[in-house]
Amino acid sequence: MPSTLAKTLAVSLGAALFAAGAAMANDDELQFYLDQFEPLPALPPIPANNSLTPEKVELGKMLFFEPRLSSSGVISCATCHNPALGWTDRLPRGTGHEGQIGLRNTPTVLNSGFLTSQFWDGREPDLEGQALGPIQAADEMAMDLDEALERIEQFPIYVEHFARAFPDDENPINAQNVAFAIASFERTLNTPNSPFDRFLRGDRGAMTDQQVDGMKAFVDNGCVACHHGPNLADGLFHRFDLPGPTDLGRFVVTGDEADRYHFRTPTLRNVAVTYPYFHNGSIDNLHDAVNLMGDQMLGQEFDDETLEALVAFLHALTGEMPNVTIPALP
Amino acid sequence: MPSTLAKTLAVSLGAALFAAGAAMANDDELQFYLDQFEPLPALPPIPANNSLTPEKVELGKMLFFEPRLSSSGVISCATCHNPALGWTDRLPRGTGHEGQIGLRNTPTVLNSGFLTSQFWDGREPDLEGQALGPIQAADEMAMDLDEALERIEQFPIYVEHFARAFPDDENPINAQNVAFAIASFERTLNTPNSPFDRFLRGDRGAMTDQQVDGMKAFVDNGCVACHHGPNLADGLFHRFDLPGPTDLGRFVVTGDEADRYHFRTPTLRNVAVTYPYFHNGSIDNLHDAVNLMGDQMLGQEFDDETLEALVAFLHALTGEMPNVTIPALP
Repeated sequence: MPSTLAKTLAVSLGAALFAAGAAMANDDELQFYLDQFEPLPALPPIPANNSLTPEKVELGKMLFFEPRLSSSGVISCATCHNPALGWTDRLPRGTGHEGQIGLRNTPTVLNSGFLTSQFWDGREPDLEGQALGPIQAADEMAMDLDEALERIEQFPIYVEHFARAFPDDENPINAQNVAFAIASFERTLNTPNSPFDRFLRGDRGAMTDQQVDGMKAFVDNGCVACHHGPNLADGLFHRFDLPGPTDLGRFVVTGDEADRYHFRTPTLRNVAVTYPYFHNGSIDNLHDAVNLMGDQMLGQEFDDETLEALVAFLHALTGEMPNVTIPALP
Repeated sequence: MPSTLAKTLAVSLGAALFAAGAAMANDDELQFYLDQFEPLPALPPIPANNSLTPEKVELGKMLFFEPRLSSSGVISCATCHNPALGWTDRLPRGTGHEGQIGLRNTPTVLNSGFLTSQFWDGREPDLEGQALGPIQAADEMAMDLDEALERIEQFPIYVEHFARAFPDDENPINAQNVAFAIASFERTLNTPNSPFDRFLRGDRGAMTDQQVDGMKAFVDNGCVACHHGPNLADGLFHRFDLPGPTDLGRFVVTGDEADRYHFRTPTLRNVAVTYPYFHNGSIDNLHDAVNLMGDQMLGQEFDDETLEALVAFLHALTGEMPNVTIPALP
């Protein structure tokens, strides 16, 4: 759905509901809102060519924390996708090899298996495609893939783990399997049982009244038009005008003028712990982020009560963090 | 004990025991060796002015993993003292701010509370003195301490944690308390129950015969003269001539010509998982490290059997890694 259409639909829907809102104060009303959402499933879709096995997940965890996949030897996936910081870095834009600052904000890995494309410009369809990007990017881990594989092969423990994770491969240590293993690990990094999910599943005490009001405002005002589905993200691209440095966004991938400055809708799950916001990380708090969305996507200014309710609702999207122990690397 | 004296004593002791070795094959013989060592205590000494409390340890853990203590915002203590890598970085020399490579090898934090001085040149007497060094060092975290404190103060969760950890302080967020908290956390990072410790405590099956032979050779050849006490380190400084870049070592601290190129004896605990070795990280495997020590400290070449036994013994010094969960940072 192009963003203009989404906007039109959303605003119409919001207006209609707003008019009817005061009259509805019963279970049917609540049910209407609940029907707009779905709780987070236990696992995202698993691709047919990369079954999720404990062996791949374990290997993927080691590789995710492995700084020797970077040319400096000190940067791992977990450096910027830091488990202590909501699996992102809480910096405006990613900081990588030799302190270089990248173009874009580091997205969280949490629930990323539920996204229908990867990177802010959606240039990769899945986590398998995503995983090798930052390893090789000059301003991230700046590593040559062949050299990375050579380093890994030196460790008998990795040779063992690759053989166990990919038992049908004659030479299992290869770039594709690195991607398969990291993607498998990432598919386990989900955050179930947020107050929102518990509320959706019937625990009516899981959200505060203000958060419930925020959930309703989220629907009434049309936020849900783009932020829906298990990960509250539509997988589409929308135009943003943000303060600070920016880039051409989706246009870089498609060359289509209509995609200029368009960026993929991010998940809203765990948004309270994955600041700063937007593709260039230029907004560092939820109030400003919600106001900017109201202005740019919905063409409206929220009153204080609505703003506070929306922010409270966004806090209800913080789920249980995955319980990941630090692996012992060779 | 100056290193020359240590060397003389060690060699004499070694020679005397070697001569008597063949005749002793009983409990008395074993007891003689056991008497040279002590198992790792549960905790290192706690300084009178920094009692070890759970509140300080918890805060110290957060600060240890806190990348916003670095000017780039992506380097924390745990970057170079990486829990996945034996609480060091497994690089020849530390790599810090903007990819700068430092002068010296990163020492493990494990059991560092048992050391009687900190840094390779011993310039700080304790972990409290050590903790603030790397935060400020231009080639490590490159951070201004005042700015670090300002960043911390912005987070209500840190304000709470500092107040709980230092309840008697009116303004608990200060540099000294950062050092106190990090040092407290580090004092909990110990590795008890290595095969060696279990053997010392009477579990005669904990080490292999080869490891027991290695333990005896470690005494017989005089290694124990410098590597003794709970952390197998004498706290003294000895001259090393290593391949690769070096620096003036202890001389930088004392200005005493006799200290030129002298470096502190490192712990041998967990040495198998804390490669590469020596103050410039120029040696990457235990066989070469043991040979170099034989040559430079003891003036002798080990035969193959002795070398293999010594290396096997060093593997018995790997203890149980501390079970540290990744903290959730604000």
